Amino acid sequence: LIAELLPSGGADTPYASVDLDAVTRNVERMQAYCDAHGLTLRPHVKTHRLPAIAHEQVRAGAVGITCQKVDEAAVMVAAGIEDVLVCYPVLGEAKLERLCGLAAAARISLAADSAEVAHGVSRALARRGLEIDFLVECDTGLDRTGVQTPEQASELARLVDGLPGLRFAGLMTYPTGPLTEPFFARARELIERAGLEVGKLSGGGTETALRTHELAKLTELRTGTYVFGDRACIANGSVALADCALRVHATVVSRPTPTRAILDAGSKVLTTDPVEAPGVPGYGLLVERPGALVDELFEEHARVQLAPEEPPLQLGEVVSIVPNHACGTTYMQPRVLAHRAGAPVGWWPVTGRGAVR
Amino acid sequence: LIAELLPSGGADTPYASVDLDAVTRNVERMQAYCDAHGLTLRPHVKTHRLPAIAHEQVRAGAVGITCQKVDEAAVMVAAGIEDVLVCYPVLGEAKLERLCGLAAAARISLAADSAEVAHGVSRALARRGLEIDFLVECDTGLDRTGVQTPEQASELARLVDGLPGLRFAGLMTYPTGPLTEPFFARARELIERAGLEVGKLSGGGTETALRTHELAKLTELRTGTYVFGDRACIANGSVALADCALRVHATVVSRPTPTRAILDAGSKVLTTDPVEAPGVPGYGLLVERPGALVDELFEEHARVQLAPEEPPLQLGEVVSIVPNHACGTTYMQPRVLAHRAGAPVGWWPVTGRGAVR
Repeated sequence: LIAELLPSGGADTPYASVDLDAVTRNVERMQAYCDAHGLTLRPHVKTHRLPAIAHEQVRAGAVGITCQKVDEAAVMVAAGIEDVLVCYPVLGEAKLERLCGLAAAARISLAADSAEVAHGVSRALARRGLEIDFLVECDTGLDRTGVQTPEQASELARLVDGLPGLRFAGLMTYPTGPLTEPFFARARELIERAGLEVGKLSGGGTETALRTHELAKLTELRTGTYVFGDRACIANGSVALADCALRVHATVVSRPTPTRAILDAGSKVLTTDPVEAPGVPGYGLLVERPGALVDELFEEHARVQLAPEEPPLQLGEVVSIVPNHACGTTYMQPRVLAHRAGAPVGWWPVTGRGAVR
Repeated sequence: LIAELLPSGGADTPYASVDLDAVTRNVERMQAYCDAHGLTLRPHVKTHRLPAIAHEQVRAGAVGITCQKVDEAAVMVAAGIEDVLVCYPVLGEAKLERLCGLAAAARISLAADSAEVAHGVSRALARRGLEIDFLVECDTGLDRTGVQTPEQASELARLVDGLPGLRFAGLMTYPTGPLTEPFFARARELIERAGLEVGKLSGGGTETALRTHELAKLTELRTGTYVFGDRACIANGSVALADCALRVHATVVSRPTPTRAILDAGSKVLTTDPVEAPGVPGYGLLVERPGALVDELFEEHARVQLAPEEPPLQLGEVVSIVPNHACGTTYMQPRVLAHRAGAPVGWWPVTGRGAVR
């Protein structure tokens, strides 16, 4: 289908396409879920890094967006997004200066997990007469960033409350899991006992997004991958194949044996990100041959193994792949072909690409 | 060291740096090896995608460069490189048109493995009155692209010899391995019996590069990763740590427990490319704590596990990482900090980034 939409001469592969109708379905489904369960939705734009989709998410009802890096937020503020949570510990004068610039131009909030970060951000903001919301990041099971205990959460909340330039605004975690509710409940109890209000309880993650109400009493949901879906989402049941919006299109450039085909998209297009689930080996779902295994990626080649009973792939044939990990794959593309209702909307530059500082 | 070289205010991490002194050592070592063994050297630029380094390789004695994609070649021709082997099956009018444009402007050769590609390239070139060298790609053990038998190699060589726009120039394989010599010897015998000359026997791969003479009688060596080295090269013994030119610099942004530190470089900087060797788990070598394990990468976080007896990492500390895979990691960077003799040379844009078509 998409190959027919291309301007002329067929597809110059590899390239990625985004089905905006699928995006709209995913955006509306998640917003309806949040509306039904009294949650504000604050999508994570790391998945798409495309301002047009961030705006669609906000128009559909999101209160704002989530970014990890300051420069990712800067790209989105430059594109007209007005409310951004930076959920990352911001350290260092260069980044603090940029964070303050953003805070002067948009509604910025921050989630972080240490007194050092709180002091640094406070000093930078207060010096400029600025003030932002600060959420305490809690590690409720991922073993990544976040304070480790409700007691530490309470301690950091009390510190933040006393620092100029910061308003203590609540608790944040990623992902929402079985330990989120007991952690948040205890932390909230301790913080309220200290006389502070816990305004927001923010959880995240696509895998558990539509089960948030079963897992924890939250006020806010942050989720990113749901907007595109990917092979990992299919595997964990969070997004159906029909709603996977991002496809990589590749050409069969070599067919050394009847059951081996080589595609012109490798790790520099698809990434080597695995699907962390049993029984889902390889590097993407080949839509035209769902029984095939993309068993190896090289930098510019994907190797496809076909079962002998499957119809062979022909040299020159253009195929499409649902990638293992949408966020990583989008990030590899200088541009994506956006299409809606069977018509191309345009080649959209992935504006937020490279914004990792 | 590098942090001190940065213009002001310390390092704004994550970023990658390239030690040009190490690059020069690697370039000179490989050139000396090729000179000593009567091999022409044609480095693969996929590792660095930096015109300045391609030119250094040519100045040191390389006969030209190797690229996989047409657009990668276009970037290098635009930067003044005059001799490029495109070792990839080029299919489709859009790419053929660009390939012909390059062939009119520089000395271009092509390696491919099918009659279909040979016919397509021949038609496109002959129509424009152009002619290029064509090498037959042979699969001598990787199970990727390449004809599968010496008989198929001979058949394709004879076809190419009869096609306008193409000169049969020899055989090509990747990587040079134990099966390369018997395959090439038999194919050469068959091709010469048909009255054709096998001008070039081209092998590749950094792991076996300095042992090429023990593996096969070749005329040309193509190798890419040697120029930077990486953790995989350290593991297979092809490049020493002291000669690893590419480092990623990251800040400790969270230290949730005494033995867990989080760095601000994740898969969007380092890639999830593994080291395919036993006993080398994780995602990079932390230079300042060689006993630490970077056990998990998230998109914007690396998780470091320190042994309890190691000195802890401090919040705000800037550390450096030798990545698992230099080629993938360079490709993630919009720019790299090049330095020589302890002084910064400049922020070099990774010009070939995104050139995957």
